[in-house]
Amino acid sequence: MASFINRRQMTIEWGQCDPAGIVFNSRFFEMFDTSTWMLFEKALGVKPHELSKTFGIIGIPLVDARANFLKPAKFGDVIEIASRVSEFHRSSFEIEHHVSINGELAVEGEETRVWAARDKTNPDKIGGVAIPSEVIGRFE
Amino acid sequence: MASFINRRQMTIEWGQCDPAGIVFNSRFFEMFDTSTWMLFEKALGVKPHELSKTFGIIGIPLVDARANFLKPAKFGDVIEIASRVSEFHRSSFEIEHHVSINGELAVEGEETRVWAARDKTNPDKIGGVAIPSEVIGRFE
Amino acid sequence: MASFINRRQMTIEWGQCDPAGIVFNSRFFEMFDTSTWMLFEKALGVKPHELSKTFGIIGIPLVDARANFLKPAKFGDVIEIASRVSEFHRSSFEIEHHVSINGELAVEGEETRVWAARDKTNPDKIGGVAIPSEVIGRFE
Amino acid sequence: MASFINRRQMTIEWGQCDPAGIVFNSRFFEMFDTSTWMLFEKALGVKPHELSKTFGIIGIPLVDARANFLKPAKFGDVIEIASRVSEFHRSSFEIEHHVSINGELAVEGEETRVWAARDKTNPDKIGGVAIPSEVIGRFE
Repeated sequence: MASFINRRQMTIEWGQCDPAGIVFNSRFFEMFDTSTWMLFEKALGVKPHELSKTFGIIGIPLVDARANFLKPAKFGDVIEIASRVSEFHRSSFEIEHHVSINGELAVEGEETRVWAARDKTNPDKIGGVAIPSEVIGRFE
Repeated sequence: MASFINRRQMTIEWGQCDPAGIVFNSRFFEMFDTSTWMLFEKALGVKPHELSKTFGIIGIPLVDARANFLKPAKFGDVIEIASRVSEFHRSSFEIEHHVSINGELAVEGEETRVWAARDKTNPDKIGGVAIPSEVIGRFE
Repeated sequence: MASFINRRQMTIEWGQCDPAGIVFNSRFFEMFDTSTWMLFEKALGVKPHELSKTFGIIGIPLVDARANFLKPAKFGDVIEIASRVSEFHRSSFEIEHHVSINGELAVEGEETRVWAARDKTNPDKIGGVAIPSEVIGRFE
Repeated sequence: MASFINRRQMTIEWGQCDPAGIVFNSRFFEMFDTSTWMLFEKALGVKPHELSKTFGIIGIPLVDARANFLKPAKFGDVIEIASRVSEFHRSSFEIEHHVSINGELAVEGEETRVWAARDKTNPDKIGGVAIPSEVIGRFE
């Protein structure tokens, strides 16, 4: 399992909360997306908007997202999101996001993403390509 | 499996799309939430904001959400979301959302929600309670 | 003043509301954006994603947005948004959005947008160009 | 003019951008809302979720919001938002938000908010009440 972890802290905003006074579910998926970009920036030393160019890919599109909501996060709560690649496959990978409040796990998120590039013979076709071993190495 | 299905059509908006020109993942979870409210309104004949009062619950909080992205939805695409309860448990239930574009499945979503009420002896405690059989019956 | 009006009805969603139980302000600006796209589609008979190509522009970027909140909109409220171009200038125009609930004005919005194209001699430069009179005519 | 300024820096996220690759307009109004909460927290030394209780108000509802978009903000851009109360009236006040990128002004925002409380004789009625002078003093 990749051991490189990105941690960030955020204070829950009014506009992220719903009439029950807690973070609306879709907002966590926004946070996960940003946490993944930050994880890659930290691990690879490449700015998010330069990731495609640097590695000759079109990006790291999301194919699957999941979240398990254990405890609500309220307006003003300070949360920590700890993110890491939990598994690398040949051309895809799994990211794990743990949201905690005061050290207690509040939300568990998971994303599956693809290391995607245009087909060399048919540029209209996009698909997963092998993740370079030097990329994988940066997460260890 | 509950056979009552709610279908709705939407046209993808500019503000729902990201720099890749496709719907940003969190937007689908917003759509699923609204589709679930609409499904319950249609099946039970109760307005969303009257659901709690009518059934003596605090709501139907989300405990788990998942989406599998098969095909991207682009600005201007007309999508159909078909939603139904795929399974009722004692105090929780699963909802399935199928997003299709021109009849082709684009996104599969799933939510797990709880039929939640305040504890009668300790109102600060919230937990799942048995889903009334007449509620379940309305989805058949 | 342009007399062509686009009207649409929406039911306020849970995820659009904040802990005060009312629509969070930014959501109205999302609605205005979509209402403007719909207004142009109806008036010009051109799909939003084909607007640029059809008229040789890069789009109708927003340069100014304003909203005046008179009455709150709550979860489940049915709102109507009536939108029209209130004024055409040489290369820019004003759009007026009136949000009403049960016939009562709730929010007044205004947008200023530019009919923008790439400079013919320097394609990196984007700026306003004269709005064709046949475009203006379609809003009367 | 109140001289207390709150400054914060943010990196533009993928999910905040639209198909033109720039921040979608409504996202700035989300940022302004959060910046106002932070400005009040810093000036008054009161956590946002304790503001109502501390001052016997229901909150500081927004009655008017405006933004002037001068330069686009792109994915990955580091922005600074500088916010201050530009004017206090008897029961309302104006907040000014300046968004800059590399020291250049990109967006000018303004909000008008009300210092709002429930009517003492009719709690269903909400309206503006005089802003305490000690509150105003904290912004100088």
